[in-house]
Amino acid sequence: MSKIKVAVLGATGAVGQRFVQLLENHPWFEVTALTGSDRSVGRLYGEACRWVLDRPLPEYARTMKVVPTEPGLDAVIAFSALPSDQAQALEPAFAQAGHSVCSNASSYRMDPDVPLLIPEVNPDHTALIKVQQQQRGWSGFIATNPNCTSTGFTIAFRPLHDLFGITKAFVVSMQALSGAGYPGVASLDAVDNVVPYIGGEESKVESEPCKMLGKLNASHVIDAPIKISAHTNRVAVIDGHTVCVSLEFNQPIGPQEAVQAMLDYEWDETVRSLPSSPARVIEVRSEPDRPQPRRDRDAGQGMTTVVGRVREDPLFQVKFVVLSHNTIRGAAGGSLLNAELLVAQGLVK
Amino acid sequence: MSKIKVAVLGATGAVGQRFVQLLENHPWFEVTALTGSDRSVGRLYGEACRWVLDRPLPEYARTMKVVPTEPGLDAVIAFSALPSDQAQALEPAFAQAGHSVCSNASSYRMDPDVPLLIPEVNPDHTALIKVQQQQRGWSGFIATNPNCTSTGFTIAFRPLHDLFGITKAFVVSMQALSGAGYPGVASLDAVDNVVPYIGGEESKVESEPCKMLGKLNASHVIDAPIKISAHTNRVAVIDGHTVCVSLEFNQPIGPQEAVQAMLDYEWDETVRSLPSSPARVIEVRSEPDRPQPRRDRDAGQGMTTVVGRVREDPLFQVKFVVLSHNTIRGAAGGSLLNAELLVAQGLVK
Amino acid sequence: MSKIKVAVLGATGAVGQRFVQLLENHPWFEVTALTGSDRSVGRLYGEACRWVLDRPLPEYARTMKVVPTEPGLDAVIAFSALPSDQAQALEPAFAQAGHSVCSNASSYRMDPDVPLLIPEVNPDHTALIKVQQQQRGWSGFIATNPNCTSTGFTIAFRPLHDLFGITKAFVVSMQALSGAGYPGVASLDAVDNVVPYIGGEESKVESEPCKMLGKLNASHVIDAPIKISAHTNRVAVIDGHTVCVSLEFNQPIGPQEAVQAMLDYEWDETVRSLPSSPARVIEVRSEPDRPQPRRDRDAGQGMTTVVGRVREDPLFQVKFVVLSHNTIRGAAGGSLLNAELLVAQGLVK
Amino acid sequence: MSKIKVAVLGATGAVGQRFVQLLENHPWFEVTALTGSDRSVGRLYGEACRWVLDRPLPEYARTMKVVPTEPGLDAVIAFSALPSDQAQALEPAFAQAGHSVCSNASSYRMDPDVPLLIPEVNPDHTALIKVQQQQRGWSGFIATNPNCTSTGFTIAFRPLHDLFGITKAFVVSMQALSGAGYPGVASLDAVDNVVPYIGGEESKVESEPCKMLGKLNASHVIDAPIKISAHTNRVAVIDGHTVCVSLEFNQPIGPQEAVQAMLDYEWDETVRSLPSSPARVIEVRSEPDRPQPRRDRDAGQGMTTVVGRVREDPLFQVKFVVLSHNTIRGAAGGSLLNAELLVAQGLVK
Repeated sequence: MSKIKVAVLGATGAVGQRFVQLLENHPWFEVTALTGSDRSVGRLYGEACRWVLDRPLPEYARTMKVVPTEPGLDAVIAFSALPSDQAQALEPAFAQAGHSVCSNASSYRMDPDVPLLIPEVNPDHTALIKVQQQQRGWSGFIATNPNCTSTGFTIAFRPLHDLFGITKAFVVSMQALSGAGYPGVASLDAVDNVVPYIGGEESKVESEPCKMLGKLNASHVIDAPIKISAHTNRVAVIDGHTVCVSLEFNQPIGPQEAVQAMLDYEWDETVRSLPSSPARVIEVRSEPDRPQPRRDRDAGQGMTTVVGRVREDPLFQVKFVVLSHNTIRGAAGGSLLNAELLVAQGLVK
Repeated sequence: MSKIKVAVLGATGAVGQRFVQLLENHPWFEVTALTGSDRSVGRLYGEACRWVLDRPLPEYARTMKVVPTEPGLDAVIAFSALPSDQAQALEPAFAQAGHSVCSNASSYRMDPDVPLLIPEVNPDHTALIKVQQQQRGWSGFIATNPNCTSTGFTIAFRPLHDLFGITKAFVVSMQALSGAGYPGVASLDAVDNVVPYIGGEESKVESEPCKMLGKLNASHVIDAPIKISAHTNRVAVIDGHTVCVSLEFNQPIGPQEAVQAMLDYEWDETVRSLPSSPARVIEVRSEPDRPQPRRDRDAGQGMTTVVGRVREDPLFQVKFVVLSHNTIRGAAGGSLLNAELLVAQGLVK
Repeated sequence: MSKIKVAVLGATGAVGQRFVQLLENHPWFEVTALTGSDRSVGRLYGEACRWVLDRPLPEYARTMKVVPTEPGLDAVIAFSALPSDQAQALEPAFAQAGHSVCSNASSYRMDPDVPLLIPEVNPDHTALIKVQQQQRGWSGFIATNPNCTSTGFTIAFRPLHDLFGITKAFVVSMQALSGAGYPGVASLDAVDNVVPYIGGEESKVESEPCKMLGKLNASHVIDAPIKISAHTNRVAVIDGHTVCVSLEFNQPIGPQEAVQAMLDYEWDETVRSLPSSPARVIEVRSEPDRPQPRRDRDAGQGMTTVVGRVREDPLFQVKFVVLSHNTIRGAAGGSLLNAELLVAQGLVK
Repeated sequence: MSKIKVAVLGATGAVGQRFVQLLENHPWFEVTALTGSDRSVGRLYGEACRWVLDRPLPEYARTMKVVPTEPGLDAVIAFSALPSDQAQALEPAFAQAGHSVCSNASSYRMDPDVPLLIPEVNPDHTALIKVQQQQRGWSGFIATNPNCTSTGFTIAFRPLHDLFGITKAFVVSMQALSGAGYPGVASLDAVDNVVPYIGGEESKVESEPCKMLGKLNASHVIDAPIKISAHTNRVAVIDGHTVCVSLEFNQPIGPQEAVQAMLDYEWDETVRSLPSSPARVIEVRSEPDRPQPRRDRDAGQGMTTVVGRVREDPLFQVKFVVLSHNTIRGAAGGSLLNAELLVAQGLVK
């Protein structure tokens, strides 16, 4: 079977680099185009790109020529690592031109006819793609993955919400520096410091999970009736977002039931067999002091959600800590898993 | 007027060093004894002590001889920087021997007849001292200051609780490394990492504020009816605990009213005139990204509580960020201010 | 006596902010102008400037209006915190217009008729100012302070070179993040990392000390005949450059003599009485593990050079560690001390 | 072919854990014993050991029972991760009992009849083992690997010394926190700081390379006539020692020749085919700002030495930066490669 051709839009940025890295030796996909800004177009990727990831730049990409971010590329799937203003302008053109756009940008996440997708959480929401294509007259489509902070705890919420009905959630994040891209956060703001603010983040974290955990209803999603309050903070961690969560449910639930639900949940079989799906969707740790970002972010090659400290909450019912790799599961890896799901569902053409 | 003689119990540890530092050139107090463990007794303080603070060891202390931690020292006030197991055993003996023990240890904080004291929050709770002396037959007494994490947000709660009645509080801390003493947290646990756990901390943070904000009733305090849920985390910050807070009140309150309350509150006049009282008890910052520990911990020589990002909470009513210097206001400086209050109230004899 | 009017050129940048901070309540100087780029001109300094220092913005500066960087300001002394390309273009115009320019920029440091000045090291080099004024036809002048890394070890070299004649020096720096300004070094380059490269730094460090330690000869300086090899590195430290030094001399010298020379050196009396001169020019520590940047950078309000680990060098003769505060002594504070010296010498008119 | 049985002595410490990790799925070796202190003996390794590495504890080790560190274990090779005082006492007993001791401890490194071994550097020094066995009457033996800081630059020195004859070397290290074990360096010493001192390190770094680069002469090694001066520093890096090096040679050599020598060197063929030998012994990078510890330490699974910034030295001849993973190549991985060489040479029986 021949591989599906894919492009990475905005390939020279920090998220673009993660796409390039994760697509190396992918069993289904073959990278045929890397796009960049005017400054980069025409240069070799290995030269145009200031590689910031810790493992080396994959050989396959080093000598590819960077092309402009314009529809008509020789690629079926277009992974978008574009900044949100560019994504806003360019992604519809790609979808109209027939590309399957799997986007990490926030621009269209909350559009009613655009799936905001985590394969383990709401694989059925891909049905919105037909609605989108009809309404917009596109042969391609846009599918999005959520904000890096929403990702981890929404995966942890899936079993709990299904079984017990979450009604209220407090979420407080301690987010990694890589979430701000490169150069991103100044070192003078990071060392011996916490910045208790990330622009635009809290509103995303308070709304995206409700769409993902919502129910599909013909042409749109009915948001899950969960009230979320978020505090988002930047800490001196390279990769891995740590989130403290307190939850209230529709029914009396304790830590024991919550752990059991996360361990026993039967995830969608199609999803579990996708190439980028981790061995365990959720890992629940029992040590008192885990998860920790440096020690747990690479679980499942950065695709596993790690939960720990599940305990009673004196105000709500249950509280715990969730850790998720923000630039793998929370960005490029999440988008890649979305593409795999869409291929498996026959929606990529 | 001659100065009051004071001792520092457990003077060679990290909190003990802060006492030694803050007591340099104190207008009311004169250090007459520094106590230590067997390893240190008989040696000069400058030699026995591995000084870990950033400013140099005060000259006055360098050549004092370390003495055993035993009652009968030539000191009216005994500042206790003892570990809680030693505090448990030794502080009553000091109180019985007539010393005014101002303790940073947690051992007796929650005893009904022991004031858990922040001068700006509950200066009237010192009335418990008479109860304590009667019940225990002591000529001296024990007064305590709260846990370093409780301190900052309890000060911020004072005006809000007084005016609007807090009913529920979520508090999530990002705590400095110095809170664990020296050597304390291993660097391999701190760099590029968060440890989402601090032993015994959450239960203190969930209970101490209710005692401090409670009402004095003859022989004990009736806890304030506030339900608190705490998540406590360790981050790579030297000094300064950052706490995210979400609050629900007895009545409809918005961010505006909360800010106004914190700015306008009329603090106890006696307290405001104490030597270690800062120019401003609470500083409310308006920038979107403050307070930050490295930039705000030294406000008011580490005695001011800095609040920022006061905004609506979609789940409760108001949320904000509080910062407080954990080893100054939250430990030695808090204890010192307590002693000053007790002197001003005529309770130290 | 009325104060001398001074301007800060490039006042909104990181070094400019240090000037603004150090000039607060200066006994001789009064800030009458703060200059900035087009983006800032006309706005209040407190609004135009993103203040990055840890202590708060001084009140006096908050409401000053930022003016363009153009000669003719109502100021006798112009402290230049300009980037080197702007300094190159603008400083001569200020000197021509009669201003005494005390510059932290590297642009003119190595010009033969421009003093490269550390008051304790080469106060006589200010004689170049007359040469400069004659040759260039200026009524004002330019005087410069050295690179932040050169500063500390050149001060430590002064006594050693005077007494024993340094012939060779290895210097390896571990430099603070603040040396790169704000935003400067990306946090993704700083956390859990070392960057063993700082653009243009090594050549400055290998040449500037030779000029400063050189002998004045009528119209120029004859460089000291010291061969220097430098390696410069960036480490995750906020402030304070640590430098490892190995030295060879003209004569047999051991650690003991080196320490004695640094402790006993008779510094210029005029310099010692300047307002920004620290109590001790050099502090020599005897602990095995000092100096350390976080613990020693504030010695002498950031103006003292701290030396430690003076020991035999198996290859050369003596090796040691030097620490100096890079944005105080190594930048704004150094320039300020230069201005004080020039005033004391009657060269500022 | 059945695997060779190996034990890890001191398996619960930080270096011991690296042995346990690197021995997972080893093609030649099978772990049959993990030893520990009294506190651990009899417990399962997974419970006795506080695992500090970032990847999870290997399954094979989790349920092994920790045994006492005593000769007679069912193992041919004993990898020693013992602290040096214990190594001093116990390693000879293991060698006498017939075990092939591959030790990371410093205790016997400088003994004339003990090989101090890096397979790529001095594979012929294993001839000392026969001398050792004869002199000491042992059926087993002790072979050691060097200090973690010596390792990287000695590998880089091998081609240079062979071809050009190094005469003098300045080496200044910026060492990772993991080099001090766990808990090791206190976070209060590491964050926003440099500690310019590591106990006992400089003398090792100044002597070990001379033995390794020396010539074997019947019963001992004649040290290479290289004078080394070392400054060793601790910086806030998790893994990876960065070393700045300046070199003088017997003949006129420039950076070009040095690079070529490192790239073209013909390493021992036997060594190149060992299972833990990396694809490239030395990687020479051409970017101005590499190597960097976080980005280069994992080259060759932590077994490649990464060199960069090879340039002229104004004082000696050539200077450059070397990076090496301190707990893999510089400790457990180095010892493991030694064992593989000794097996390949038929010395393990």
